Amino acid sequence: MAALFSERMSLIVQKYGGTSVGDPSRIMNVAKRVIATQEAGNQVVVVVSAMSGVTDGLIKLAREVSSAPTEREMDVLLATGEQTTIALTAMAINALGKKAVSLTGAQAGIITDGVHTKAKIANITPKQIHGFLDEDCIVIVAGFQGQTMSGQITTLGRGGSDLTAIAIAAAVKADICQIYTDVEGVFTCDPRVVPHARKIAEISYDEMLEMASSGSKVMQSRSVEFAKKFKVPFEVRSSFSNNPGTIVKEETMSMENVVIRGVSIERNQAKVTITNVPDKPGIAAKIFNTIAGANIIIDMIVQNVSVAGTTDISFTLNKDELPKAKAALDSLVKEIGAQGVIAQDGIAKLSVVGIGMRSHSGVAAKLFDALSAGGINIQMISTSEIKIAVVIDEAKIADAAKLAHDAFGLGEKG
Amino acid sequence: MAALFSERMSLIVQKYGGTSVGDPSRIMNVAKRVIATQEAGNQVVVVVSAMSGVTDGLIKLAREVSSAPTEREMDVLLATGEQTTIALTAMAINALGKKAVSLTGAQAGIITDGVHTKAKIANITPKQIHGFLDEDCIVIVAGFQGQTMSGQITTLGRGGSDLTAIAIAAAVKADICQIYTDVEGVFTCDPRVVPHARKIAEISYDEMLEMASSGSKVMQSRSVEFAKKFKVPFEVRSSFSNNPGTIVKEETMSMENVVIRGVSIERNQAKVTITNVPDKPGIAAKIFNTIAGANIIIDMIVQNVSVAGTTDISFTLNKDELPKAKAALDSLVKEIGAQGVIAQDGIAKLSVVGIGMRSHSGVAAKLFDALSAGGINIQMISTSEIKIAVVIDEAKIADAAKLAHDAFGLGEKG
Repeated sequence: MAALFSERMSLIVQKYGGTSVGDPSRIMNVAKRVIATQEAGNQVVVVVSAMSGVTDGLIKLAREVSSAPTEREMDVLLATGEQTTIALTAMAINALGKKAVSLTGAQAGIITDGVHTKAKIANITPKQIHGFLDEDCIVIVAGFQGQTMSGQITTLGRGGSDLTAIAIAAAVKADICQIYTDVEGVFTCDPRVVPHARKIAEISYDEMLEMASSGSKVMQSRSVEFAKKFKVPFEVRSSFSNNPGTIVKEETMSMENVVIRGVSIERNQAKVTITNVPDKPGIAAKIFNTIAGANIIIDMIVQNVSVAGTTDISFTLNKDELPKAKAALDSLVKEIGAQGVIAQDGIAKLSVVGIGMRSHSGVAAKLFDALSAGGINIQMISTSEIKIAVVIDEAKIADAAKLAHDAFGLGEKG
Repeated sequence: MAALFSERMSLIVQKYGGTSVGDPSRIMNVAKRVIATQEAGNQVVVVVSAMSGVTDGLIKLAREVSSAPTEREMDVLLATGEQTTIALTAMAINALGKKAVSLTGAQAGIITDGVHTKAKIANITPKQIHGFLDEDCIVIVAGFQGQTMSGQITTLGRGGSDLTAIAIAAAVKADICQIYTDVEGVFTCDPRVVPHARKIAEISYDEMLEMASSGSKVMQSRSVEFAKKFKVPFEVRSSFSNNPGTIVKEETMSMENVVIRGVSIERNQAKVTITNVPDKPGIAAKIFNTIAGANIIIDMIVQNVSVAGTTDISFTLNKDELPKAKAALDSLVKEIGAQGVIAQDGIAKLSVVGIGMRSHSGVAAKLFDALSAGGINIQMISTSEIKIAVVIDEAKIADAAKLAHDAFGLGEKG
C-alpha cells in the first residue's frame, strides 16, 4: 500500500505481539525494525502487547490475593503489562538514537465502554498521537487497554492488542496497519498439516473472518470485523523475517477468480445429538438456552427435516466442554420428550473458505468427491455463503486437509 | 488525633511501604488492617508503594535495552510498580468483602511539574477520591507518581510515596496521616547502637527534619518539609505490630521541656580540608562551585577565622565521594593559591537534636563533657538552632552515641 503513496509520507501502524517483544533482546529487534520503517520515509505508530508470560504472571499474583479478583482491579493490574512494554520499546528506540515516546491506552485517547476485562472501543481521540508524530517521534501505544469516559482503566479482552492497532489505524487514517506476529501470514492450510501450503498474498475480510472462526488462529474475529467495518487494510506478517505477509482488505473483483482461498481445520471437537426431538416450536430454543445458560460455546448446529413428527438435533463443541454439555442436557431431554443424548468426541472440522464459491458451482461436490476418494466419511455438513464445513473422524483430518488442498489446487503457484 | 473527633467520622490516610506490601500474604495483612480502620468508623485512603524488589527489577529491565534510559520512559516504566500494588490491594480488600477501588496517581488527581524521575507535586484535585469515599469505598492510591498538566506520567523520586500520602492528606484535609513502615517509629537513637533507646511519642517537624538530615533514615526530608508547610500531622508506625508509633506535628509548648529529642549518627563519612586558603572574597564560592559541578553532595562545612591571611576550609561528605572530590580539587588548589588538600575517611557524625536547646543553655558543654569523659576526640563541630553535630573517629561512634544518650537522659522513661 505504502508504495502507492510514494510521493508523500505514509503513516504506518505496526503491532507487535507478546512473543515479538518477549525479552529485552527481542524488544531491541523491534526497535530496529521500527526505525527502519521510519527511515524509509514513514511516520510510525507502534502498538505493543505485554511481554509473553507477563500477563499470566499478573493473573497468578491476583489469584494469590483473591479467588475471584474484581474485574475493575484486574484491568488496573493487567494494564501494567503493556505499560511496561511501551516504556522499554521507547527506551530501546531512544538508545538507538531516535525520538520515541510511549503512550498508555488512556493517553492515546482510547475511550471504551465500562465493561471491565472485555471492553469495547467507543471512540479514539488521537490528539497526543498526532502531536508527537508532528514532532517526528515514533509513537509507542499500549495495546489491549483504554479508559472509560470517567477515567477508569479498562482492557479489551482476547485479541485486544490487534484491535487497538486496527482502531488506531482507522482513527489516524493510516495507510496500512501491519500486524507482526510469530507466523509468516495466513496460509492456504496449516503448513504443519499440509507441507506444501502456500502463504496467501491477499484475502478479503469475509474470507479472513471465516478462516478465523474455522480454526485458523492467526487473529481474533473481532479485530477483523472492526477492520472490515472501518475499511482498514492490514497485513499479517512475521516479526522474525522480512518477508511480506498476507494483506487483508476489501474484496476486489479479481479475488473471485480464486474459488477457494484456504482450508481450515479444527481438532478436539465433539458432537452432541439429541435424538427424536418432537418437531414443535420452541423446542430448539429451549435446548440452546440451556446450553447458553451453562456457558458452553458451541459451533455448528445441524437439524434435518423431521420424519414422523420428530427430528435429530446435533451440534459441535470443543471436547473439553462435553461433560458440562451432557450434564446440562440430561434432565432436559425428558422434559422436552426427546429420546436421548448421544455425545461423541474424536471428531474434527474441516472448512473450505472462498468468496469465489459464490460465483462458482460444484464446490461442495468437488470437496465431497475428494474426501470420498480418500475413504473419508462425512458425519455432518454446514455451509455459509463463502464456506463449506464438514465434520469427520479426527484421525483422518490431516489426510482430509491434504485431499481438499489438492482438489482445489491450493498448493500450485497462484 | 482521631479520638479528638469521635463524634464525627474521621478521615485517615495510611501509607504502606514496599516491605509492608512485599508479597501477596503481606498485602492481605495490609487489607485486614485497612478494613479494621474503616470498621472503627473511619473513612480510609491508602497509599501504597511498589512491592519490595519490583522497582529494582524494572530498573534492571530498562538497563537491558538502554545504558541511559530516557527519564520520561523510566517514569512510564516505574509507575507500573505501584499500579500493580494498588490493584492487588483493592482486590484483597474486595476478597474480604469490603468495597475498595484503586487509583493511579493520575486518576487521584496528582498534578506535578514536568521534571521526570524527580517531579514536584504542583496541585492535587482529589475529585475521584472524594467520589469513591462518598460511595463508602476504601480508596487505594498509587504512591510515587503523578501526571503533568499535559497528561505525561511522572514519578516523584526518593521518598515519593511518603510525599504522596502527606500531600493527599493535605488535599483531602485528613485528620491524620499514618506512615506504616518496617520500624516502630522514631527512636531516641538507633536501637541497634543504643539498646535502651526509646520510641519517641511526639516530635516536631523541625526536629524530625534535623534527625532525617543527620542520619535517621526513617523518612526523606522533603516529605517532612511538605507536611510542615501544609501543617499535616502524621504518625510513623510499624505495619507489623499494633503499637502506636511516633507522631510528627507542629511544635507545642510542652515540647520545649525536653532538651534533646534524640541522637542521630551517620557513619561512612569523610572529611576534606583545604589548607592555607587565602582569605579573600570569592574563594569559598570557587571551591564549592567546583564541588557542585562534579555532582558531589557535601554535608557539614566548617571554616574558622583566618590567621595571617589564610584559613583552613573543611567539609564532610560520604566516603564513597572522596576520590571524586580529591580529583576535582587537586588542580583548583594551585589556582586559588592554597597549600594543599587533606582527605581523610574513617570518621562519623553524631548529632543531638531538640527544640528544647533553644531555651536551655549548656547543651553543647554537656555533650562535649560526655564525649571527653569517654576519651573521644572531637574533630569538627557544627551547630544549628536545634542541633549540635560533631565529627569523631568512626570506631568510637557507638560509644559516643551511648554516652550522649545517657548524658541527656534519653533512656529514662519520659
